[in-house]
Amino acid sequence: MNLSHMKQKQWLLASRPEGIPDRTHFDLVEVPVPEWEPGKALVKTLYLGVAPVMLRYMRNETEFESPLPLGSLMPGRGVAQVLRSDCPTLPEGAIVQARLGWQEYALIDASHRPAPFILPSDLPASHGIGAVSLTGITALVGLRDIGLVRATDRILVSGAAGGVGSHVAEIAKILGAGSVTGIAGGPEKCAKLLTSMHYDEAIDYKNEDVDEALNKLFPEGIDLYFDNVGGPLLDNVLGRLRRRARIVICGAISEYLKDKENRHRFINLQNLGRQDAKMEGFFVFDYEAQYPDDIALLAQWVREGQLNPVEDISQGIETLPDALGDLYFGRNTGVRMVHVGDPVQR
Amino acid sequence: MNLSHMKQKQWLLASRPEGIPDRTHFDLVEVPVPEWEPGKALVKTLYLGVAPVMLRYMRNETEFESPLPLGSLMPGRGVAQVLRSDCPTLPEGAIVQARLGWQEYALIDASHRPAPFILPSDLPASHGIGAVSLTGITALVGLRDIGLVRATDRILVSGAAGGVGSHVAEIAKILGAGSVTGIAGGPEKCAKLLTSMHYDEAIDYKNEDVDEALNKLFPEGIDLYFDNVGGPLLDNVLGRLRRRARIVICGAISEYLKDKENRHRFINLQNLGRQDAKMEGFFVFDYEAQYPDDIALLAQWVREGQLNPVEDISQGIETLPDALGDLYFGRNTGVRMVHVGDPVQR
Repeated sequence: MNLSHMKQKQWLLASRPEGIPDRTHFDLVEVPVPEWEPGKALVKTLYLGVAPVMLRYMRNETEFESPLPLGSLMPGRGVAQVLRSDCPTLPEGAIVQARLGWQEYALIDASHRPAPFILPSDLPASHGIGAVSLTGITALVGLRDIGLVRATDRILVSGAAGGVGSHVAEIAKILGAGSVTGIAGGPEKCAKLLTSMHYDEAIDYKNEDVDEALNKLFPEGIDLYFDNVGGPLLDNVLGRLRRRARIVICGAISEYLKDKENRHRFINLQNLGRQDAKMEGFFVFDYEAQYPDDIALLAQWVREGQLNPVEDISQGIETLPDALGDLYFGRNTGVRMVHVGDPVQR
Repeated sequence: MNLSHMKQKQWLLASRPEGIPDRTHFDLVEVPVPEWEPGKALVKTLYLGVAPVMLRYMRNETEFESPLPLGSLMPGRGVAQVLRSDCPTLPEGAIVQARLGWQEYALIDASHRPAPFILPSDLPASHGIGAVSLTGITALVGLRDIGLVRATDRILVSGAAGGVGSHVAEIAKILGAGSVTGIAGGPEKCAKLLTSMHYDEAIDYKNEDVDEALNKLFPEGIDLYFDNVGGPLLDNVLGRLRRRARIVICGAISEYLKDKENRHRFINLQNLGRQDAKMEGFFVFDYEAQYPDDIALLAQWVREGQLNPVEDISQGIETLPDALGDLYFGRNTGVRMVHVGDPVQR
């Protein structure tokens, strides 16, 4: 199969955003679809995901991604159909989760780290962006491997209606947690926390007194805090820890846009020592060795109806910059992703 | 053996210190030596230890100790000789480490938690306050169980010449660490770090530019920080973490004396998330299940000459309040303890 006479769209990095990324930070270009090469797989993009960490790639702030010069293809993982391949781990026709970049077709290498993996064929391909993929694994690793969730834990989750947060209550309950309270912005998101994401309680930080709500819901303190936002709310929680509490730092979206001078100054940090508690950050790429087992577990929970993905999908590769910006505006409910194309009939 | 016709000295809590505890916060009283009771052990105190956490007991700030009303016997663990006992775990003549209180004789109960334990008879009894006791276990648990020390780790230790800190470099090296740098106050302590405590490098925070020294000694950042002081130095280290670094919060002596308004406000905390690092407090009482194994290990290292306890001993039960105060003034080098009495000849 040679598609190199065909054109495809790609998003390139045009400038480094200081604030929330938008279309002006990217260039949409048309280039030929790459030719297949031996040892690789030519794939067609079906869905692409967005994640807060991408802003850090765009600013060259992380060590996970290679440096990203201006003009580079924007990196990102997604779900794709294998069109032509001689890689035994990427058979033709398979639906795979891989590092694709923001483009309609990609020539991928099985040796990329974390390696591409095949999605269970009985589940919708979109789940390969969310529940049955790195988003679900992030929630699972955060709760189980970092949070060491225990049967009686009273858990608080910030950014609860976001991509990772939307899975945390269900997974925490599968793992035996006592109760799970989510914090989100606005009545619609909070309603979703209770109706679609299996949270026990919801706090609307835009319309409620968060202190009062936490006093009421956690009179004895918090056992486990799954944090997606950082900043003043994290400081508040640090002052409410029970003995041997655990804080899982999944993200700190409130802080990514601030320069160092404007970052929050934490007054309650030493309470971590006073309560013999733990606070730990993690990145899901470091847990690659357990992806096959975790994907199998997450897929099984979806099949059993214990894990019910909430997906927030826009149509067309053109919508990618807006999808990324939405994370920072807090506009998404559930896993924000872009539907780029459909599988070819074979 | 009935010693109840004899008098003994005890220190009672007289008032709750706001600043550094001194003699005015205690009353020295004379009371009869308790009568032996079935099911208990009457013991004679040989050594008593002091620890920064005692100030928190005096202020009723912890959940480990039962509340301490004014007029109570000051709690504290020490080394004692069993004079009379029918407890199978506390045989007459044995030298034990136990919760004694600040007194010359005690009637102890094998069911106290953490339980009393017998010291190896071939080692000096004073080691039962330091290396072969909860101080040594604190260093070991902090490095191994909390710090997850790795072979290439570049380690920084604050309060390095203190009771726990004086053991950290030697234990870290036994566990395979790459290099260990200690921070202490004054040239004498720093010389001791290098000559007696097996640190590779020493930083004198009273006479050196700590920033410059850390830049020079940790050009690629810090893998493991064993923290005894908290405050601005902890914040500095948070800004120097390598990926997947670990901060062991053993103590925060710089913060214990401050009211909430004057506590340090941490600017670099979110770097913990950015570097996928961990910060964790712990209390050695939670690790009681492993005391027998850890005591055997520490005793073996002392016998082999790999662990060389540095002890800072004052004479007589009258010196206990000063011994406790010394910790806050930073006057001790090594394990501060008080020699209260000698074993009776049997």
